[in-house]
Amino acid sequence: MRQIVLILRYDGSQYHGWQIQANAKTVQGTVQAAISQIIREDVHVIGCGRTDTGVHAHIYVASFLSSSSIPTERIPLALNSILPNDIAVLDALDAPLSFHPIRSCVKKEYTYTIYTHAVHDPFLQGRALHMTRKLDVEKMERAASHFIGTHDFASMRSLGTDVSSTVRTVFNYDIISNSGVLQFVVCADGFLYNMARTMAGTLLDVGFGKIDPDYIPRILKSGDRSLSGPTAPACGLALTHLWYDDFEKLKEISYVAGKKF
Amino acid sequence: MRQIVLILRYDGSQYHGWQIQANAKTVQGTVQAAISQIIREDVHVIGCGRTDTGVHAHIYVASFLSSSSIPTERIPLALNSILPNDIAVLDALDAPLSFHPIRSCVKKEYTYTIYTHAVHDPFLQGRALHMTRKLDVEKMERAASHFIGTHDFASMRSLGTDVSSTVRTVFNYDIISNSGVLQFVVCADGFLYNMARTMAGTLLDVGFGKIDPDYIPRILKSGDRSLSGPTAPACGLALTHLWYDDFEKLKEISYVAGKKF
Repeated sequence: MRQIVLILRYDGSQYHGWQIQANAKTVQGTVQAAISQIIREDVHVIGCGRTDTGVHAHIYVASFLSSSSIPTERIPLALNSILPNDIAVLDALDAPLSFHPIRSCVKKEYTYTIYTHAVHDPFLQGRALHMTRKLDVEKMERAASHFIGTHDFASMRSLGTDVSSTVRTVFNYDIISNSGVLQFVVCADGFLYNMARTMAGTLLDVGFGKIDPDYIPRILKSGDRSLSGPTAPACGLALTHLWYDDFEKLKEISYVAGKKF
Repeated sequence: MRQIVLILRYDGSQYHGWQIQANAKTVQGTVQAAISQIIREDVHVIGCGRTDTGVHAHIYVASFLSSSSIPTERIPLALNSILPNDIAVLDALDAPLSFHPIRSCVKKEYTYTIYTHAVHDPFLQGRALHMTRKLDVEKMERAASHFIGTHDFASMRSLGTDVSSTVRTVFNYDIISNSGVLQFVVCADGFLYNMARTMAGTLLDVGFGKIDPDYIPRILKSGDRSLSGPTAPACGLALTHLWYDDFEKLKEISYVAGKKF
């Protein structure tokens, strides 16, 4: 048995998220079917996390176990030839059997993109949230700083997944503002269900003046989801960076235009 | 009678080009129907040029004559509320009756985008040409320099439109290379049918080593379409800049992210 890791990149617009569901087109289902077709073997693909309907991945790590003897370096081309154009296999790597796409991942980065131009942009459709309401970026930056550190993020998630702990460590939360485009870049050791979108929605409420930036610590302390902002729409969210410690080649995987990925 | 100018931006992927055709979804047809619905008057929309199926416009100027009394400043919001998301009205302006979207336009810029990453990119699908074959950019730059100036571009167009002259002036032709993305930026006083795409296809043939860069002047002189390269695929092409001399507000119209457009 060997474990093969796939580095993927996908536009989630046309998928009901990563995770396989009955009667719905999912990324996991699409990739799994393509692998089975190539290696003529039933496989189970494990992903590095659940992305929701419409959420994108600039980088995504998945793996499967196989007894096939297909050379690893042939897998990307073979899969790309049958996968739809909105999913790309950037690379395939051999990994030790101890490797696990979720458990081995030490850090993840999500980017939430908002643009504030007067008119919606046909080229950002489904890729960013269009927001014409005035936002106080300084207040949002102040609020974002309160997310950094180790906190109980129970107030920043949607129910729906059983987790043993709702404590996570946010390493940084940066707001990058450039020509009317705002990017919330958040890096953490893990994310609860809808946590990235709830933090984004909460920052938007801060930007509108609905939530005081210094009220964030109290929301976190309360663990009360009703005190935070709405779950921001999926289209603005993309998984943008992943870090793995225990597997040399995956130590730092990121999409760098023009490089291999 | 008044003339109203619309500044548009559209993703051409889902349209059979700008120009109205029977039984096909076109940008002109879609915009014209939306205007008629808003002002309750049959209008004829004139565009600044024909874009082919799948070609994009970051900026596009169209106009129509109307006897409606609708305030000009209300038009963008009204149209955007009924137009599909892949067409945006960035602005509406009152123009003198002497203004004409094509005849008043003194300069146009098209950008052809190619990316050379090893694997196709889901986020550039339909927006750029994916090319993994090795390209000699220096040779392409040398070839492009031969396009600059006033020449007969009969060898760089497709037949299909009657024009009184095939002589055009190319003001500049720049190749911008950045992290595996190549942009051919060409600015001219006008473009013949498929001229931007034929020039791009010819430069690609130069990049592959099929056409010598210094053979370009002879191709232009010959007027023989069979000597130039293929018409490059539509997806890579976008109208990116327009210049008007005789109408103050339209003197220089360009999409500037974060600004009004």
